[in-house]
Amino acid sequence: MKQRVLEVEQQLLRALEPARQRANDVIARETARWRGPARLVEAMTYAVMGDGKRVRPAIAIELAAFLGGESAAARVESAACALEWLHTYSLVHDDLPAMDDDALRRGRPTVHIAFDESTAILAGDALQSEAFVLVAAADASNRSAEVRVQQCESLAKHVGIAGMCGGQATDIGHHAQTTEALRAMHGDKTGALFATACEIAAIAAECDDDERRAWARFGELFGLAYQLSDDILDLDEVADSAHEADVNLAHRLGPDAALAMVRADRAEAAALLDRFAVPDDHVLRLLIDWNEARAVSALA
Amino acid sequence: MKQRVLEVEQQLLRALEPARQRANDVIARETARWRGPARLVEAMTYAVMGDGKRVRPAIAIELAAFLGGESAAARVESAACALEWLHTYSLVHDDLPAMDDDALRRGRPTVHIAFDESTAILAGDALQSEAFVLVAAADASNRSAEVRVQQCESLAKHVGIAGMCGGQATDIGHHAQTTEALRAMHGDKTGALFATACEIAAIAAECDDDERRAWARFGELFGLAYQLSDDILDLDEVADSAHEADVNLAHRLGPDAALAMVRADRAEAAALLDRFAVPDDHVLRLLIDWNEARAVSALA
Repeated sequence: MKQRVLEVEQQLLRALEPARQRANDVIARETARWRGPARLVEAMTYAVMGDGKRVRPAIAIELAAFLGGESAAARVESAACALEWLHTYSLVHDDLPAMDDDALRRGRPTVHIAFDESTAILAGDALQSEAFVLVAAADASNRSAEVRVQQCESLAKHVGIAGMCGGQATDIGHHAQTTEALRAMHGDKTGALFATACEIAAIAAECDDDERRAWARFGELFGLAYQLSDDILDLDEVADSAHEADVNLAHRLGPDAALAMVRADRAEAAALLDRFAVPDDHVLRLLIDWNEARAVSALA
Repeated sequence: MKQRVLEVEQQLLRALEPARQRANDVIARETARWRGPARLVEAMTYAVMGDGKRVRPAIAIELAAFLGGESAAARVESAACALEWLHTYSLVHDDLPAMDDDALRRGRPTVHIAFDESTAILAGDALQSEAFVLVAAADASNRSAEVRVQQCESLAKHVGIAGMCGGQATDIGHHAQTTEALRAMHGDKTGALFATACEIAAIAAECDDDERRAWARFGELFGLAYQLSDDILDLDEVADSAHEADVNLAHRLGPDAALAMVRADRAEAAALLDRFAVPDDHVLRLLIDWNEARAVSALA
């Protein structure tokens, strides 16, 4: 069962490989440009240059290229890199002793273990600031001020109280009491970063407001189905802790209803891809297939 | 001696009162707009709506009004509020147990005491995000995309690794070994927020790059002289801790050299005010007089 999931994941990662490589190159280049106190820059670089799959920035680049070709892909590079820095800041802070208290992340000591707690707090803080420096500043792609400021706003909204940070607060505080609240929390914690990945791409391609909203919804649906298929894969681990059981939406819904919800998310996302005439063999199609395949194989 | 300092401070705060009131109104209005998890929003609001003097946003509003009248003042309101949120986020995180471990701030329990540590971390994180949401978004002042994105960039640069956060990392890590390094640290920790207060105002007034740099320098000089006069006032407290003595620039320089540096900063700032024909009785003049008066009276 897990073997089949790994195969589908490998297939997806291979399809995303060129965009992931491009994202990684931009991230490595921009990360190397930081100038500041040595230990702080070292901690930030350590966090960013770990073994990340760069899925969020790769999706942004793939979508921008689909919508507006190479010039749009170039106009999303800085924002895609900023998105990865924002994602990284959230991981650094989530791992802190007062939060999830994790000593390992992707097989390496977390930042507060490899450095110290105050450095981890400041590294996360500065990663967030540098993300907005990067998106706001002019770059080689000649993004207009309008594109830059809209990308800033999209990223900020999706990491703030109505997005990632709000979702994290709901999670930490055990405040998702109903299945609706839990789904909303997953939308904030996981959906929001994928929503902005797609929105910054649509902004780079100078889509109109209606198209931007549609693509942000596509990203959110991908994130929701991704989280829910994760929850389905984790069903046999909910016995380990009351909190795991409490925040596992598949556990709350039951496996059948959870699979039905993944399929409904996939159907809504597929309809959006149909609307924008995305070819059947495009990597964006593979993305939404992946979630369903993971869910199905977990329950097989 | 301290009585004279308080008198000068009261005089300055009275002169800044209309701008401080305006800043406070904007901050109260924008803070009331947050929508998100109740406890997170409550903690953020508690932090922002404490007994802050709103000096940074008030300076931004005064300077914008001087440079471009009411329309420029209106165009700096959102960014001035964002600046106060960024300042507040830094205080919330500085107070954390792993940082300065303070239980009180302006006479009230700090956020991690009044709420809890994870909420304080997330509240600081979300304050930073919401600051960029506010600056990036269009508002009633009809700021152009160019003004909005330049204000974003100015704020982000001055709170990131080359500004506030970098200065904090240098401080926490005891990495300021020379007087030059200590002065640079004060420039980052204290000067940067005043520099961006002035820069966002110059952007709102659509000053050219050269004028923007001059005003940012004015803000930096004010912040440096403010911190140094603070250090002079604190000279009788350096015996309390090795770290206090270590980061007190007046202690390292000696009182006479410290006063001379405050006067040199004041002279450079005054020359900038002369260049822009700021009237002798303008509040911006009072600002720089204040630092020297504090330093002089402390050493009287």
